[in-house]
Amino acid sequence: MNKHGVPIIDNKAEMRELISHIRKNNNIIGFVPTMGYLHKGHLSLVQKAKEISDIVIVSIYVNPAQFSQGEDLSRYPRNIDHDLTLLKNLHTDYVFIPQEDKMYDPDHKTWVHVTELEDKLCGKSRKDHFRGVATIVLKLLNIVSTDLMFMGEKDYQQVVILEKMISDLDLPVKIIRCPTIREEDGLAMSSRNSYLSPEIRINATSLYQSLNHAKDMFHKGIPEVKEVIREMRIIIESKGGKIDYIEAFDSKILQQIDHLSKGSRIALAVFFDGIRLIDNIEI
Amino acid sequence: MNKHGVPIIDNKAEMRELISHIRKNNNIIGFVPTMGYLHKGHLSLVQKAKEISDIVIVSIYVNPAQFSQGEDLSRYPRNIDHDLTLLKNLHTDYVFIPQEDKMYDPDHKTWVHVTELEDKLCGKSRKDHFRGVATIVLKLLNIVSTDLMFMGEKDYQQVVILEKMISDLDLPVKIIRCPTIREEDGLAMSSRNSYLSPEIRINATSLYQSLNHAKDMFHKGIPEVKEVIREMRIIIESKGGKIDYIEAFDSKILQQIDHLSKGSRIALAVFFDGIRLIDNIEI
Repeated sequence: MNKHGVPIIDNKAEMRELISHIRKNNNIIGFVPTMGYLHKGHLSLVQKAKEISDIVIVSIYVNPAQFSQGEDLSRYPRNIDHDLTLLKNLHTDYVFIPQEDKMYDPDHKTWVHVTELEDKLCGKSRKDHFRGVATIVLKLLNIVSTDLMFMGEKDYQQVVILEKMISDLDLPVKIIRCPTIREEDGLAMSSRNSYLSPEIRINATSLYQSLNHAKDMFHKGIPEVKEVIREMRIIIESKGGKIDYIEAFDSKILQQIDHLSKGSRIALAVFFDGIRLIDNIEI
Repeated sequence: MNKHGVPIIDNKAEMRELISHIRKNNNIIGFVPTMGYLHKGHLSLVQKAKEISDIVIVSIYVNPAQFSQGEDLSRYPRNIDHDLTLLKNLHTDYVFIPQEDKMYDPDHKTWVHVTELEDKLCGKSRKDHFRGVATIVLKLLNIVSTDLMFMGEKDYQQVVILEKMISDLDLPVKIIRCPTIREEDGLAMSSRNSYLSPEIRINATSLYQSLNHAKDMFHKGIPEVKEVIREMRIIIESKGGKIDYIEAFDSKILQQIDHLSKGSRIALAVFFDGIRLIDNIEI
């Protein structure tokens, strides 16, 4: 225990031992992997985990392997004290904060690729991002060996990739998808929102507005993706957003589509003042 | 049970259930993954597993993902009846023979790469071989979730790659390395030896002869790899072997070396009549 009143585990061996103890009591383990700087999106995952698991474990680890060269690894926001207070308030059972220099061997060579899926959408501009995500999640699952893992649909591609990895590798874990949590004005919760200045913060609401506009267009009988994306671009660019991509795709295999239909999805990545924000919506 | 008197499990769910039952009794599980057509090399692994584990599980699965285009997947030798008789005689506890069409999803996309190591030695000519090996072994470990896995040093690069994968991915399993088992004349045991005609079978003994010759040269004060390999080539080529590679390397990271020293290793791959045989020796 510690001043925050929530048990922290900082090494792999201790984590494994704890898990084998929990397993013996036939408890269902719920796991929420995070990179810290927790917001209401993360907390909604912990709450869901509390509802349907016996023991909830949250990990906090800023995974260097999922940042590409030139991205924001070194300045990624951190506030462990605040995170622990929030987790304690939700009665989180254990927090796993692995020692940063112990997570990867200095001579790490093993990478998990979920081919095709990793190259689409965010994978086009974030080289090696998803191999970094898949590899760290697999490592964490091998240490925490959970029954349920809770992930937000804000990172939609990430969820689809990890579900495919779990199925392809016969991992005995199930992902529980949780809906995107938004600020009152619709901006999807993200640790990176903290980078935004007040004015730009307001302009960033154009992302969710554009996604809702797309949904409206579909319901008004305009399913042509080209047409829909043209109008989305206008909404975002008029607020100063620099679009990385806007894409409509099949929700299962992330296959690009020309015509929207019920259940298909639109995702986007947009830079505001150099900060890359993502969001997506189900049609 | 069945006519062979050894319990066979043919699906993942049943295997998982059995494992969780074994785990509850705190038994140590020993696992021997094979592609069947068992010989004394495999049996030595099973024997070692019997010695130091409580429950021994052998898998038989010819993994298509580790055969490259144009290799011998379709004609890889099989004899399940004989395999089961041999395994019964060694009092194997369970044999896992997954249904062939159930092991990989038809839309399998997830591959494990152990970079650098996978491209050396056999990786140079067998494209994608080691990603196939790493992926199937990870899948099997996720189903069988063993404490100990038994592997022969005949496939030396495979052992080094899988040890690195296990360490990098934090898998809770330990590889027990077992020595290469040889025919009386020195030829390393291999399922592929069954392809050889009687004359060629005799010529193939030149592989082990050349490896021993290398060791002798080192002990006689000739550590220069160039010199050693020159003489090895003469021994093998005089018997009609077509050399794929002969390489001397550091035993830990498979780094090519120019001078032999105690503990370094020489490995080779040679075609006899189109059949690719491998062997290696510790200096």
